[in-house]
Amino acid sequence: TFSNRGMTLEDDINQTNQYYLDVDKAVIHKKPTPIQIVKVNYPKRSAAVITEAYFKQASTTDYNGLYRNYYLDFEAKETKNKTSFPLANVHEHQIKHMESIVKHGGIAFIIIRFTVHNETYLLEAEKLFPYWYEKQASGRKSIPYKEIKQTGYLIPFKYQTRVDYLSIIDQLYFNNH
Amino acid sequence: TFSNRGMTLEDDINQTNQYYLDVDKAVIHKKPTPIQIVKVNYPKRSAAVITEAYFKQASTTDYNGLYRNYYLDFEAKETKNKTSFPLANVHEHQIKHMESIVKHGGIAFIIIRFTVHNETYLLEAEKLFPYWYEKQASGRKSIPYKEIKQTGYLIPFKYQTRVDYLSIIDQLYFNNH
Ligand SMILES: [Mg+2]
Ligand SMILES: [Mg+2]
Repeated sequence: TFSNRGMTLEDDINQTNQYYLDVDKAVIHKKPTPIQIVKVNYPKRSAAVITEAYFKQASTTDYNGLYRNYYLDFEAKETKNKTSFPLANVHEHQIKHMESIVKHGGIAFIIIRFTVHNETYLLEAEKLFPYWYEKQASGRKSIPYKEIKQTGYLIPFKYQTRVDYLSIIDQLYFNNH
Repeated sequence: TFSNRGMTLEDDINQTNQYYLDVDKAVIHKKPTPIQIVKVNYPKRSAAVITEAYFKQASTTDYNGLYRNYYLDFEAKETKNKTSFPLANVHEHQIKHMESIVKHGGIAFIIIRFTVHNETYLLEAEKLFPYWYEKQASGRKSIPYKEIKQTGYLIPFKYQTRVDYLSIIDQLYFNNH
Protein backbone atom coordinates (compact mmCIF):
# COMPACT_ATOMS: atom_id res chain seq x y z
CA THR A 1 0.00 0.00 0.00
CA PHE A 2 1.01 3.59 -0.54
CA SER A 3 1.92 5.79 2.34
CA ASN A 4 2.07 9.53 2.91
CA ARG A 5 4.67 9.26 5.65
CA GLY A 6 7.65 11.48 5.12
CA MET A 7 6.08 13.66 2.43
CA THR A 8 4.70 17.05 3.38
CA LEU A 9 1.29 18.11 2.16
CA GLU A 10 3.03 20.71 0.00
CA ASP A 11 5.27 18.06 -1.60
CA ASP A 12 2.23 15.91 -2.32
CA ILE A 13 0.26 18.76 -3.87
CA ASN A 14 3.24 19.87 -5.97
CA GLN A 15 3.66 16.32 -7.25
CA THR A 16 -0.07 16.13 -8.00
CA ASN A 17 -0.03 19.46 -9.85
CA GLN A 18 2.95 18.32 -11.90
CA TYR A 19 1.01 15.22 -12.90
CA TYR A 20 -2.05 17.31 -13.84
CA LEU A 21 0.26 19.46 -15.97
CA ASP A 22 2.00 16.47 -17.56
CA VAL A 23 -1.28 14.85 -18.64
CA ASP A 24 -2.66 18.28 -19.67
CA LYS A 25 -5.57 18.13 -17.22
CA ALA A 26 -5.07 21.47 -15.44
CA VAL A 27 -2.56 24.31 -15.06
CA ILE A 28 -2.10 24.85 -11.32
CA HIS A 29 1.06 26.18 -9.66
CA LYS A 30 2.31 26.97 -6.21
CA LYS A 31 3.02 30.66 -5.83
CA PRO A 32 6.63 31.28 -4.86
CA THR A 33 7.25 32.41 -1.27
CA PRO A 34 7.42 36.21 -1.29
CA ILE A 35 10.87 37.46 -0.30
CA GLN A 36 12.07 40.99 0.45
CA ILE A 37 15.51 41.20 -1.14
CA VAL A 38 17.90 43.66 0.54
CA LYS A 39 21.40 42.84 -0.75
CA VAL A 40 22.60 41.08 -3.88
CA ASN A 41 26.19 40.39 -4.92
CA TYR A 42 27.06 40.08 -8.59
CA PRO A 43 30.30 38.11 -8.71
CA LYS A 44 32.17 38.05 -12.03
CA ARG A 45 31.51 34.95 -14.12
CA SER A 46 28.94 33.44 -11.76
CA ALA A 47 25.34 33.77 -10.72
CA ALA A 48 24.05 36.66 -8.62
CA VAL A 49 23.93 35.79 -4.90
CA ILE A 50 21.30 37.20 -2.59
CA THR A 51 23.10 37.82 0.70
CA GLU A 52 20.38 39.51 2.72
CA ALA A 53 16.66 38.91 2.39
CA TYR A 54 13.59 38.43 4.57
CA PHE A 55 10.40 36.44 4.37
CA LYS A 56 7.33 38.56 3.62
CA GLN A 57 3.74 37.75 4.52
CA ALA A 58 1.92 36.29 1.51
CA SER A 59 -1.01 38.45 0.44
CA THR A 60 -3.01 35.62 -1.09
CA THR A 61 -3.16 31.82 -0.90
CA ASP A 62 -0.66 29.07 -1.72
CA TYR A 63 -1.93 27.86 -5.08
CA ASN A 64 -3.91 29.06 -8.05
CA GLY A 65 -4.56 28.06 -11.61
CA LEU A 66 -6.95 27.02 -14.32
CA TYR A 67 -9.17 23.93 -14.67
CA ARG A 68 -12.00 23.33 -17.14
CA ASN A 69 -12.34 27.07 -17.85
CA TYR A 70 -12.46 27.90 -14.15
CA TYR A 71 -10.10 29.92 -12.01
CA LEU A 72 -9.11 27.78 -9.02
CA ASP A 73 -7.55 29.07 -5.80
CA PHE A 74 -6.68 27.29 -2.60
CA GLU A 75 -4.71 27.25 0.60
CA ALA A 76 -3.12 24.08 2.02
CA LYS A 77 -2.65 23.46 5.74
CA GLU A 78 -1.40 20.54 7.81
CA THR A 79 -2.17 20.05 11.46
CA LYS A 80 -0.83 17.61 14.01
CA ASN A 81 -3.97 18.14 16.07
CA LYS A 82 -6.12 14.99 16.37
CA THR A 83 -9.53 16.40 17.16
CA SER A 84 -9.71 19.81 15.50
CA PHE A 85 -8.25 22.23 12.97
CA PRO A 86 -7.03 25.41 14.71
CA LEU A 87 -8.41 28.52 13.00
CA ALA A 88 -5.25 30.44 13.91
CA ASN A 89 -3.80 28.67 10.84
CA VAL A 90 -5.91 30.82 8.53
CA HIS A 91 -5.16 34.52 8.19
CA GLU A 92 -7.69 37.26 7.67
CA HIS A 93 -6.17 38.39 4.36
CA GLN A 94 -6.53 34.81 3.07
CA ILE A 95 -10.23 34.80 3.95
CA LYS A 96 -10.69 38.20 2.26
CA HIS A 97 -8.86 36.90 -0.80
CA MET A 98 -11.03 33.75 -0.97
CA GLU A 99 -14.17 35.86 -0.61
CA SER A 100 -13.07 37.95 -3.61
CA ILE A 101 -12.41 34.81 -5.62
CA VAL A 102 -15.86 33.40 -4.95
CA LYS A 103 -17.45 36.79 -5.71
CA HIS A 104 -15.70 37.07 -9.10
CA GLY A 105 -16.66 33.57 -10.21
CA GLY A 106 -13.68 31.47 -9.17
CA ILE A 107 -13.54 28.24 -7.17
CA ALA A 108 -11.90 28.64 -3.75
CA PHE A 109 -11.22 26.04 -1.08
CA ILE A 110 -8.84 24.90 1.61
CA ILE A 111 -7.03 21.57 1.76
CA ILE A 112 -6.52 20.37 5.33
CA ARG A 113 -4.37 17.41 6.27
CA PHE A 114 -4.68 15.75 9.66
CA THR A 115 -1.25 14.18 9.80
CA VAL A 116 -2.11 11.93 12.77
CA HIS A 117 -5.07 10.42 10.90
CA ASN A 118 -3.19 10.53 7.60
CA GLU A 119 -6.31 12.03 6.02
CA THR A 120 -6.59 15.04 3.73
CA TYR A 121 -9.85 16.96 3.27
CA LEU A 122 -11.14 19.55 0.84
CA LEU A 123 -13.34 22.16 2.49
CA GLU A 124 -15.08 24.64 0.21
CA ALA A 125 -14.34 28.29 1.02
CA GLU A 126 -18.07 28.94 1.44
CA LYS A 127 -18.11 26.41 4.30
CA LEU A 128 -14.95 27.83 5.86
CA PHE A 129 -16.24 31.43 6.03
CA PRO A 130 -18.92 30.89 8.73
CA TYR A 131 -16.35 29.25 11.05
CA TRP A 132 -14.00 32.14 10.48
CA TYR A 133 -16.65 34.72 11.30
CA GLU A 134 -17.52 32.81 14.49
CA LYS A 135 -13.86 33.13 15.40
CA GLN A 136 -14.10 36.89 14.89
CA ALA A 137 -17.44 37.25 16.65
CA SER A 138 -17.25 34.83 19.55
CA GLY A 139 -13.67 33.64 19.72
CA ARG A 140 -14.15 30.20 18.20
CA LYS A 141 -10.71 28.59 18.26
CA SER A 142 -11.04 25.68 15.87
CA ILE A 143 -13.16 23.47 13.63
CA PRO A 144 -13.78 20.00 15.09
CA TYR A 145 -12.31 17.13 13.09
CA LYS A 146 -15.76 15.48 13.12
CA GLU A 147 -17.34 18.48 11.41
CA ILE A 148 -14.66 18.55 8.72
CA LYS A 149 -15.33 14.84 8.16
CA GLN A 150 -19.01 15.75 7.60
CA THR A 151 -18.87 19.05 5.70
CA GLY A 152 -15.59 18.48 3.88
CA TYR A 153 -14.60 15.82 1.37
CA LEU A 154 -11.93 13.19 1.92
CA ILE A 155 -9.41 13.55 -0.92
CA PRO A 156 -8.36 10.21 -2.39
CA PHE A 157 -4.70 9.29 -2.23
CA LYS A 158 -3.37 7.76 -5.44
CA TYR A 159 0.09 6.86 -6.57
CA GLN A 160 0.27 9.44 -9.38
CA THR A 161 -1.90 12.03 -7.68
CA ARG A 162 -1.11 11.90 -3.99
CA VAL A 163 -3.73 14.56 -3.25
CA ASP A 164 -6.24 14.09 -6.06
CA TYR A 165 -8.31 17.18 -5.22
CA LEU A 166 -9.60 17.62 -8.78
CA SER A 167 -11.62 14.42 -8.37
CA ILE A 168 -13.56 16.26 -5.63
CA ILE A 169 -13.87 19.42 -7.75
CA ASP A 170 -15.28 17.25 -10.56
CA GLN A 171 -17.98 15.92 -8.23
CA LEU A 172 -18.81 19.31 -6.73
CA TYR A 173 -18.76 21.56 -9.79
CA PHE A 174 -19.09 19.34 -12.82
CA ASN A 175 -21.26 16.49 -11.54
CA ASN A 176 -18.95 13.82 -12.81
CA HIS A 177 -15.83 11.86 -12.01
CA THR B 1 -0.83 65.77 -18.46
CA PHE B 2 0.22 62.52 -16.89
CA SER B 3 3.53 60.94 -17.64
CA ASN B 4 4.95 57.47 -17.37
CA ARG B 5 8.51 58.69 -17.00
CA GLY B 6 10.33 57.21 -14.06
CA MET B 7 7.88 54.39 -13.39
CA THR B 8 8.67 50.92 -14.65
CA LEU B 9 6.03 48.92 -16.46
CA GLU B 10 5.93 46.57 -13.48
CA ASP B 11 5.29 49.47 -11.08
CA ASP B 12 2.49 50.73 -13.30
CA ILE B 13 0.84 47.32 -13.59
CA ASN B 14 1.12 46.70 -9.85
CA GLN B 15 -0.51 50.07 -9.15
CA THR B 16 -3.24 49.28 -11.68
CA ASN B 17 -3.89 45.85 -10.13
CA GLN B 18 -4.09 47.40 -6.68
CA TYR B 19 -6.72 49.82 -8.00
CA TYR B 20 -8.70 46.97 -9.60
CA LEU B 21 -8.57 45.18 -6.24
CA ASP B 22 -9.56 48.29 -4.26
CA VAL B 23 -12.63 48.94 -6.40
CA ASP B 24 -13.41 45.20 -6.48
CA LYS B 25 -13.15 44.94 -10.26
CA ALA B 26 -10.68 42.05 -10.53
CA VAL B 27 -8.28 39.96 -8.45
CA ILE B 28 -4.94 39.97 -10.24
CA HIS B 29 -1.54 39.67 -8.59
CA LYS B 30 2.10 39.61 -9.58
CA LYS B 31 3.67 36.26 -8.79
CA PRO B 32 6.64 36.62 -6.44
CA THR B 33 10.08 36.11 -7.99
CA PRO B 34 11.08 32.49 -7.39
CA ILE B 35 14.10 32.21 -5.13
CA GLN B 36 16.21 29.20 -4.22
CA ILE B 37 16.96 29.62 -0.52
CA VAL B 38 20.22 28.02 0.65
CA LYS B 39 21.01 29.49 4.09
CA VAL B 40 18.78 31.08 6.71
CA ASN B 41 19.84 32.51 10.07
CA TYR B 42 17.37 32.56 12.93
CA PRO B 43 18.64 35.22 15.33
CA LYS B 44 17.07 35.35 18.80
CA ARG B 45 14.31 37.91 19.17
CA SER B 46 14.35 39.03 15.54
CA ALA B 47 13.21 37.98 12.11
CA ALA B 48 14.82 35.14 10.17
CA VAL B 49 17.47 36.39 7.73
CA ILE B 50 18.14 34.68 4.44
CA THR B 51 21.91 34.90 3.96
CA GLU B 52 22.36 32.86 0.79
CA ALA B 53 19.86 32.52 -2.00
CA TYR B 54 19.71 32.51 -5.80
CA PHE B 55 17.28 33.65 -8.44
CA LYS B 56 15.43 30.80 -10.13
CA GLN B 57 13.94 30.83 -13.61
CA ALA B 58 10.19 31.45 -13.40
CA SER B 59 8.21 28.55 -14.83
CA THR B 60 5.20 30.62 -15.83
CA THR B 61 4.36 34.27 -16.53
CA ASP B 62 4.47 37.42 -14.37
CA TYR B 63 0.80 37.88 -13.51
CA ASN B 64 -2.38 35.90 -13.14
CA GLY B 65 -5.80 36.27 -11.62
CA LEU B 66 -9.54 36.39 -12.02
CA TYR B 67 -11.78 38.79 -13.95
CA ARG B 68 -15.47 38.42 -14.77
CA ASN B 69 -15.36 34.64 -14.16
CA TYR B 70 -12.29 34.25 -16.38
CA TYR B 71 -8.81 33.12 -15.55
CA LEU B 72 -6.38 35.79 -16.83
CA ASP B 73 -2.64 35.30 -17.37
CA PHE B 74 -0.03 37.60 -18.82
CA GLU B 75 3.59 38.50 -19.19
CA ALA B 76 4.86 42.10 -19.15
CA LYS B 77 7.91 43.27 -21.10
CA GLU B 78 9.54 46.62 -21.72
CA THR B 79 11.87 47.34 -24.58
CA LYS B 80 14.08 50.35 -25.34
CA ASN B 81 14.05 49.34 -28.98
CA LYS B 82 12.34 51.90 -31.24
CA THR B 83 11.37 49.84 -34.23
CA SER B 84 10.76 46.31 -32.98
CA PHE B 85 10.15 44.01 -30.02
CA PRO B 86 12.98 41.44 -29.71
CA LEU B 87 11.59 37.90 -29.41
CA ALA B 88 14.55 36.91 -27.22
CA ASN B 89 12.53 38.59 -24.44
CA VAL B 90 10.02 35.74 -24.47
CA HIS B 91 11.06 32.31 -23.22
CA GLU B 92 9.87 29.00 -24.59
CA HIS B 93 8.37 27.87 -21.26
CA GLN B 94 6.31 31.08 -21.20
CA ILE B 95 4.92 30.31 -24.66
CA LYS B 96 4.13 26.72 -23.59
CA HIS B 97 2.44 28.04 -20.46
CA MET B 98 0.32 30.54 -22.44
CA GLU B 99 -0.65 27.80 -24.89
CA SER B 100 -1.92 25.68 -21.97
CA ILE B 101 -3.88 28.64 -20.62
CA VAL B 102 -5.63 29.24 -23.93
CA LYS B 103 -6.32 25.53 -24.31
CA HIS B 104 -7.95 25.26 -20.88
CA GLY B 105 -10.20 28.27 -21.38
CA GLY B 106 -8.21 31.12 -19.89
CA ILE B 107 -7.30 34.50 -21.39
CA ALA B 108 -3.58 34.93 -22.09
CA PHE B 109 -1.71 37.91 -23.47
CA ILE B 110 1.50 39.89 -23.34
CA ILE B 111 1.84 43.55 -22.40
CA ILE B 112 4.66 45.26 -24.28
CA ARG B 113 5.92 48.75 -23.50
CA PHE B 114 8.01 50.68 -25.99
CA THR B 115 9.69 53.05 -23.55
CA VAL B 116 11.00 55.37 -26.28
CA HIS B 117 7.49 55.88 -27.67
CA ASN B 118 5.97 55.84 -24.19
CA GLU B 119 3.33 53.44 -25.52
CA THR B 120 2.09 50.20 -24.02
CA TYR B 121 0.35 47.52 -26.09
CA LEU B 122 -1.67 44.43 -25.34
CA LEU B 123 -0.99 41.58 -27.76
CA GLU B 124 -3.19 38.50 -27.46
CA ALA B 125 -1.27 35.25 -26.93
CA GLU B 126 -2.89 33.79 -30.05
CA LYS B 127 -1.25 36.57 -32.09
CA LEU B 128 2.11 36.14 -30.38
CA PHE B 129 2.37 32.38 -31.05
CA PRO B 130 2.87 32.60 -34.87
CA TYR B 131 5.76 35.07 -34.42
CA TRP B 132 7.31 32.78 -31.87
CA TYR B 133 7.09 29.77 -34.17
CA GLU B 134 8.66 31.79 -36.98
CA LYS B 135 11.53 32.46 -34.60
CA GLN B 136 11.90 28.71 -34.03
CA ALA B 137 11.48 27.77 -37.70
CA SER B 138 13.31 30.50 -39.58
CA GLY B 139 15.18 32.52 -36.99
CA ARG B 140 12.87 35.55 -36.87
CA LYS B 141 14.47 37.93 -34.39
CA SER B 142 11.70 40.38 -33.55
CA ILE B 143 8.21 41.73 -34.16
CA PRO B 144 8.19 45.10 -35.93
CA TYR B 145 6.76 47.97 -33.91
CA LYS B 146 4.44 48.76 -36.84
CA GLU B 147 2.91 45.28 -36.71
CA ILE B 148 2.31 45.51 -32.97
CA LYS B 149 0.60 48.86 -33.61
CA GLN B 150 -1.69 47.05 -36.07
CA THR B 151 -2.33 43.66 -34.45
CA GLY B 152 -2.06 44.77 -30.81
CA TYR B 153 -4.12 47.27 -28.83
CA LEU B 154 -2.79 50.51 -27.37
CA ILE B 155 -3.51 50.41 -23.63
CA PRO B 156 -4.88 53.70 -22.31
CA PHE B 157 -2.91 55.49 -19.63
CA LYS B 158 -5.07 56.88 -16.82
CA TYR B 159 -4.22 58.44 -13.52
CA GLN B 160 -5.72 55.66 -11.40
CA THR B 161 -4.97 52.84 -13.82
CA ARG B 162 -1.66 53.60 -15.42
CA VAL B 163 -1.93 50.49 -17.62
CA ASP B 164 -5.67 49.99 -17.96
CA TYR B 165 -5.45 46.65 -19.74
CA LEU B 166 -8.88 45.48 -18.57
CA SER B 167 -10.46 48.14 -20.79
CA ILE B 168 -8.95 46.25 -23.75
CA ILE B 169 -10.05 42.87 -22.35
CA ASP B 170 -13.58 44.28 -22.04
CA GLN B 171 -13.58 45.21 -25.72
CA LEU B 172 -12.06 41.94 -26.88
CA TYR B 173 -13.91 39.40 -24.74
CA PHE B 174 -17.03 41.11 -23.44
CA ASN B 175 -17.92 43.48 -26.29
CA ASN B 176 -18.21 46.47 -24.04
CA HIS B 177 -16.27 49.20 -22.27
MG1 LIG C 1 -0.06 26.71 3.31
MG1 LIG D 1 8.21 40.50 -17.20
